[in-house]
Amino acid sequence: MGLLVQKFGGSSVADPDRIRAVADHLVRTRREGSDVVAVVSAMGKTTDDLVRLAGDVARHPGGREMDMLLTAGERISMALLSMAVEDLGQPAVSFTGSQAGIVTDTDHGKAKIIEVRGDRIRAAVSEGKVAIVAGFQGVSTSLDITTLGRGGSDTTAVALAAALGADACEIYTDVEGVYTADPRIVPTARKLARVSFDEMLEMAATGGRVLALRSVEFARNHNVKVHVRSSFTWAPGTWITEEDAEMDAVEAMEQAIISGVTHDTGEAKVTIERVPDRPGIAATIFRDLAEAGINVDMIVQNVSSAGHTDISFTVPRPDVDRTARCMEKIVVDTEAIGFATDEHIGRVSLVGAGMKTHPGIAARMFETLASEGVNIEMISTSTIRISCVLAEDDVERAVRSLHAAFGLDKE
Amino acid sequence: MGLLVQKFGGSSVADPDRIRAVADHLVRTRREGSDVVAVVSAMGKTTDDLVRLAGDVARHPGGREMDMLLTAGERISMALLSMAVEDLGQPAVSFTGSQAGIVTDTDHGKAKIIEVRGDRIRAAVSEGKVAIVAGFQGVSTSLDITTLGRGGSDTTAVALAAALGADACEIYTDVEGVYTADPRIVPTARKLARVSFDEMLEMAATGGRVLALRSVEFARNHNVKVHVRSSFTWAPGTWITEEDAEMDAVEAMEQAIISGVTHDTGEAKVTIERVPDRPGIAATIFRDLAEAGINVDMIVQNVSSAGHTDISFTVPRPDVDRTARCMEKIVVDTEAIGFATDEHIGRVSLVGAGMKTHPGIAARMFETLASEGVNIEMISTSTIRISCVLAEDDVERAVRSLHAAFGLDKE
Repeated sequence: MGLLVQKFGGSSVADPDRIRAVADHLVRTRREGSDVVAVVSAMGKTTDDLVRLAGDVARHPGGREMDMLLTAGERISMALLSMAVEDLGQPAVSFTGSQAGIVTDTDHGKAKIIEVRGDRIRAAVSEGKVAIVAGFQGVSTSLDITTLGRGGSDTTAVALAAALGADACEIYTDVEGVYTADPRIVPTARKLARVSFDEMLEMAATGGRVLALRSVEFARNHNVKVHVRSSFTWAPGTWITEEDAEMDAVEAMEQAIISGVTHDTGEAKVTIERVPDRPGIAATIFRDLAEAGINVDMIVQNVSSAGHTDISFTVPRPDVDRTARCMEKIVVDTEAIGFATDEHIGRVSLVGAGMKTHPGIAARMFETLASEGVNIEMISTSTIRISCVLAEDDVERAVRSLHAAFGLDKE
Repeated sequence: MGLLVQKFGGSSVADPDRIRAVADHLVRTRREGSDVVAVVSAMGKTTDDLVRLAGDVARHPGGREMDMLLTAGERISMALLSMAVEDLGQPAVSFTGSQAGIVTDTDHGKAKIIEVRGDRIRAAVSEGKVAIVAGFQGVSTSLDITTLGRGGSDTTAVALAAALGADACEIYTDVEGVYTADPRIVPTARKLARVSFDEMLEMAATGGRVLALRSVEFARNHNVKVHVRSSFTWAPGTWITEEDAEMDAVEAMEQAIISGVTHDTGEAKVTIERVPDRPGIAATIFRDLAEAGINVDMIVQNVSSAGHTDISFTVPRPDVDRTARCMEKIVVDTEAIGFATDEHIGRVSLVGAGMKTHPGIAARMFETLASEGVNIEMISTSTIRISCVLAEDDVERAVRSLHAAFGLDKE
C-alpha cells in the first residue's frame, strides 16, 4: 500500500463546499488503497485579510508576531478539513507545523526547513488515519512559530513527501497543470503531461506561476515525484519528475524539444551607461545593490568599447525607486556616465530540455521575433532556456508567435 | 515593582481601534511601574463564526479538531495586540496557551488546568517585555491543543496570576464591574466596590454574568485578588477578594448585609409527581439524568405525604426535551404518577455574606414578594444566598422590589 502526500491550495479549500469536496477526495483516495497525508493552505484570501489586519494595528509589525498571526489561517482550514473527513466516517487528525515536526531556522517570514521529524504523522498514518498538516508553517530551533514565505505550503508538501518516503506529492490547485504557455494569452496552449525538474525550475523562475521555485528545488534535490493537478476537475495534470525518468520509447520520441513559453511583466530594466571596464566593477555594483536588499534577476554585460561598457539588469518593479537611489551613488563610485531605468519591459522565455541536443533554437527564436517586428533589448540563456527582454507591449504577440513557431499549438 | 495580570475579553479587542486602545493601556501600565502580563480572548464574535464554519463542514465535529479550530481565534488577537504594543515602542511577545505552559487534562472543549509552567512568561517579563498570552487554551498531557470552555479566558488569567504570584488579576470587560442587580432591569442598581469570593460565586451561579464560575473558584482557592473593570472607561471597578480582607473599620460598618439581587431566566422547572418516598429514589432519578448528560441545577424535595413525595428541579431550557425523554423512563422505573415541565419560570436570588449573622432575611424576602403578589414556586438556600423560583413574568418586578426593600437603590 503506497503513501500519497496531497496538497490543497487556498482556492481548493476556499469555503465549506470546497472543504467537503476535498474531504470526499481524501476519503476516496484512502478507500482506493493509499495512505494519505494532506497539506492545506489557509482558506481563500484569509492570509491577505490577516496581513491587512496587522497593517491596521501596527505600522511595522514584527516578524515573530506576523508569523504567529498568519499561522492561524492554516489552523482553521486544517481543523475544518479534518472534521469534514471524520464526518464521512474516515478517522483523521490534524497537525500544526510544529506538531508535524517541521523544524525551521529562525528567519521569520521566510524560514527554511532544517528537519522534518515525521513521527506523529507516521504514527497517525499507521493507525489508519488521514493526517492533515498545516502548510506554510513550522517551529524554529528557538521554539517560535515560523512561516516559510509565499508558496510555502508547496514546500511543506514536498518536504513531507521526502521525509515520509511518499510515492508522490500531488499538488492540487485551481489550474489543470503546467501549460505550454499561459492559456489566457495563448488559447491554443496545451497541458503538458510531464516536465523535468530542471524545466519546471526554469519555468517557475521566468513567470510560470503554477509552483513556487523553492518547492521545485526541494523536489529535485530529494527526487520527489510531483503531480500538479486540479481540485476542481480532479483530472490528471502534469508530472514533474527527473528527466527521462520512467519514459518509454514512444514518449521519448514524441518528446518536444521545447516544453513551453513563459513570460513575466513584473520586472524593470536598469542600465548603467559607459562604466569603465576594469576588474571588480561588476562586483562593486551588485554588492551595493545586494546590501540594499534589492533582488537582481537577469544581468547582461555587453562587450567593451574604448575601455567602457554598458551593464543592464532587471529588478522587481516595486524596487525600481530604491534601485534608482542606489544607482546614483554607484554611478559616482564607478565613474560611469549615468544610468537609465525602464519599467515598460517584459521577459519572454523559451524552456526545453531538448535545447541541449538541438542547435539552432536561439536563432529560430530571434528570427521569429524579428519577423513579428519585435525588438530584443536583452538576451540571456541557460542550457535549457533562452530569455529575451522586450518592450512590454510586444510580450503577448511574442509569446503567441513563439508558441506557434515551435509547434506547441494544439493540432 | 509589582506584577499585574490584565485580561481583555472579546469586546475589548473586537476591532483594530480597540486593540490599539488596549495596547495603549498596557504600555501605560508598564510605564507606571508595573510588570504586566496580558491575557486575550478572540476578537469579538470570532469564536461564534468558527463554530458556525464547523457546522457547515461536519454534522458532528470532533472535540480535538474543534479545539484546534477555535484556538485560532486567540492566536489572531494576541499576535495583533503584541504588534500594536511593539508599535508603541514597548517590547512585547505573544505566547499560545501551549507556549505559556498552560497544561491541561485531555477533556476537549472543557479541559481543566493541571499545571502552569510559567518559565517562558517569567523570562519575557524579566527582560522588560509585556507578555501577551492566549486565553481559553492549553496543551494536554498528550500534547494536543485543548480549550477550557466558555469563560475560559478568565480562568487562564486567574491561573496565570496565581502561578506568577501577581499582585492582582484585572479582568477588563464591557461593563464597569459587579452591580447590585442587572442595570438593564434595575436602573437604580449600584456598582459594588467590593464583593467576597463566596458572594461572587453565588452571584455567578445564579445569573450574574460578569465572571465565569470556574475562574472565581480558582481565584478563591488560590487567593488571587481579582479586579473586574471596564476597558471602555478604564474606571475603577469591583474588587473580588477574601471576605473582610483589607477592609477598614468604616468600610466594615458600612458593609451592606445584602450585596446583590441576581436573576436567571435560562432554566426550566421539572417536577416528578407523587414518587414513592423510599431510600435511593432520588439517587435513581438524578443518576439517570447525569448519565444522559443533563446538567441539573436546583433540586427541591417537599415533605412526604402518605409515603409519596414531589421532587422538583431546574435544568437549562435547551435541555428540556432531552430531560422529558429521560423522565418518561424514570417515571416508570420509580413508579411515580407522572412528571410536568414548565419553561416559563425564572429564578431570583438574594446574595450577601451578611446573611450569616443577620437572621430574618428570608422572611423579609418572602414578605416583599408576597406584597407584590408574586407566587413562590420553589425555594433553596445556602448560608449566603436565598433563591426563589417564580413565574417568568414576575421576575423583573421581583428583582426591582427586592432591590428596593433591601436598601440597595442609589441614594
